[in-house]
Amino acid sequence: MMAPLSPGSRIGILGGGQLGAMLAGAASEMGFESHIYAPESNSPAFQRSGTSICKPYEDLESLARFAESVDVLSYEFENVPIEPLRHIERLVPIRPGISALETAQDRLIEKRFLQKVGVPLAQFCAVESSDDLVASVQELGLPCVLKTRRFGYDGKGQIILRSTSDVPNAFEALGGNPCVLEAFVPFFAETSVIAARGMDGQVASYEMALNHHENHILKTTRLPSGLPSGILTEATVASEAILRHLDYVGVMGIEFFVSGTPEQPTLLVNEIAPRVHNSGHWTQDGALIDQFEQHIRAIAGWPLGDGKHHSNVVMTNLIGEDMDGWHGLAADPCSRVHLYGKGESRPGRKMGHVNTVSAKP
Amino acid sequence: MMAPLSPGSRIGILGGGQLGAMLAGAASEMGFESHIYAPESNSPAFQRSGTSICKPYEDLESLARFAESVDVLSYEFENVPIEPLRHIERLVPIRPGISALETAQDRLIEKRFLQKVGVPLAQFCAVESSDDLVASVQELGLPCVLKTRRFGYDGKGQIILRSTSDVPNAFEALGGNPCVLEAFVPFFAETSVIAARGMDGQVASYEMALNHHENHILKTTRLPSGLPSGILTEATVASEAILRHLDYVGVMGIEFFVSGTPEQPTLLVNEIAPRVHNSGHWTQDGALIDQFEQHIRAIAGWPLGDGKHHSNVVMTNLIGEDMDGWHGLAADPCSRVHLYGKGESRPGRKMGHVNTVSAKP
Repeated sequence: MMAPLSPGSRIGILGGGQLGAMLAGAASEMGFESHIYAPESNSPAFQRSGTSICKPYEDLESLARFAESVDVLSYEFENVPIEPLRHIERLVPIRPGISALETAQDRLIEKRFLQKVGVPLAQFCAVESSDDLVASVQELGLPCVLKTRRFGYDGKGQIILRSTSDVPNAFEALGGNPCVLEAFVPFFAETSVIAARGMDGQVASYEMALNHHENHILKTTRLPSGLPSGILTEATVASEAILRHLDYVGVMGIEFFVSGTPEQPTLLVNEIAPRVHNSGHWTQDGALIDQFEQHIRAIAGWPLGDGKHHSNVVMTNLIGEDMDGWHGLAADPCSRVHLYGKGESRPGRKMGHVNTVSAKP
Repeated sequence: MMAPLSPGSRIGILGGGQLGAMLAGAASEMGFESHIYAPESNSPAFQRSGTSICKPYEDLESLARFAESVDVLSYEFENVPIEPLRHIERLVPIRPGISALETAQDRLIEKRFLQKVGVPLAQFCAVESSDDLVASVQELGLPCVLKTRRFGYDGKGQIILRSTSDVPNAFEALGGNPCVLEAFVPFFAETSVIAARGMDGQVASYEMALNHHENHILKTTRLPSGLPSGILTEATVASEAILRHLDYVGVMGIEFFVSGTPEQPTLLVNEIAPRVHNSGHWTQDGALIDQFEQHIRAIAGWPLGDGKHHSNVVMTNLIGEDMDGWHGLAADPCSRVHLYGKGESRPGRKMGHVNTVSAKP
């Protein structure tokens, strides 16, 4: 057990998007120095930190220098290339660890891991070929969902198979890449838990929130979720078991499907993200210690916040042109607008979010 | 009336201390770029911004380049030298305006201004010499307080005169500088209002909080203050009158003495600070829009937050060695620790603060 990092220590973050920016902001507010490493010159996080390096992850020499200049290294996205990390893991503690990344980067490894932990999840099969797919569809039945094992996000890299005529071309349509076939879950709600685990094994979760997606992109997160307390507890227990089994340090987003009926809901883990998560942005205005500070606390060996919330919140993502409404949103006394400083607003691009709060009854 | 600044605009801040750092953090979270100008190379705010310039304020060429590179200019301390600002005021809007700085930099100008506004304040006399002082003490009576007109803070530049024997050397003891003599106010409470005024004249104040000083340095700020609602209203009305008379844009801290008795309290304005204020740090964890975002909203022409608070808060400054207790403070689930990233902890130096929150009854 290492001593906690003292104020003034340096927190290195791989990735320069809005999550990196908000992590850097949290680290600074705690008295740490933040250092950003990202390949894109217009990275939003560069605006939030006095020190940053714009280099590719594959530039091992620059990455090693960066690693040596910080006291702990973390990341803001799960598709950090693993090989460069292996190159620097002797130089600096990497939190969460590389094994969490490896697990989350590959849906098959992830699902097998979740199966081992014993949390409920949809039936699945590995699919390496079109022939595999035919056999797997017979096993799981229709409808079902074919997903690439790697690099899927926001609905990219997946196809729903509804009828037998969808099957023959599906594998090739996803580029002939290794896939996972999942039984279709007739869910009535999508939810997520933002959980954290400290270096001492302490865990703390925020209450499970209700997510609503549009075009496969998160649109709103709502707290309270309106789901029965039994299922909130079940989700928390499952989430914390996942973190423990990974010997995880940091914040993780765990997404669930809720199927069955609202009266008798059933929980299934959809996927895990080994990082701060869009569905946790509500914590910025609903909890004393938000997910960004919680992550920095965890990786710095500090005590965790307890995850309680002081206000109810609806978080709404500002996607593409939504952002043009910033002035009206800022005029609502119950809302706080968070914008990412991205120059160009493209369709489907997350430009910011707004938290609308209300008192807890 | 100018249009509000769009996200992506550049906010320039003169001064690199913790107030500048927290302003930069707020600006970034709103999607602005922050630029810092400060003369000290180890300025905490440099850690919070992707762009900063380390030059003296008197370097007019650098200051002009800085002014031209931003869309609005603000400052984090009231002793910004006025002459350099005059040099750049045609290049960029300066908010709050120079006249607010001139008023707050000189206690005599400030008191005459407050008198003109019609807010209650202690009796005072201008003192230009030891002879003036003798005459003024006869007018105001003992005890009374001699203060330099300029550059006083945290109890520096002032002497309490309790007996006639204190009078002869007092003026020289303050360096023979122009002074103000104030009648001693037998206050039982020190308080402050954090008020804001937007470019459209809209005003919004946070509820008046109770301050406790130790060795002339703010130690705690407490909300609610425990004072009767009538006096809270009176303080708000006085504060907002001050902002209106200055045609002020931004956040201001207005400090009050409360004299009389707790049952029949009387309010007197002590002094004003034309900037975000230490006694407003509680807003970071007690209000949706904190004083830092409120200031950025004001100077950017955005709608103001309404100043309501969702939680009660005790803010405690971490001064000098207090900072060594950061780990224990972070372990309290009701507290959030804010540290300034100052390398060296000297006695009397503000190193951070902690907000301890509780639910509003």
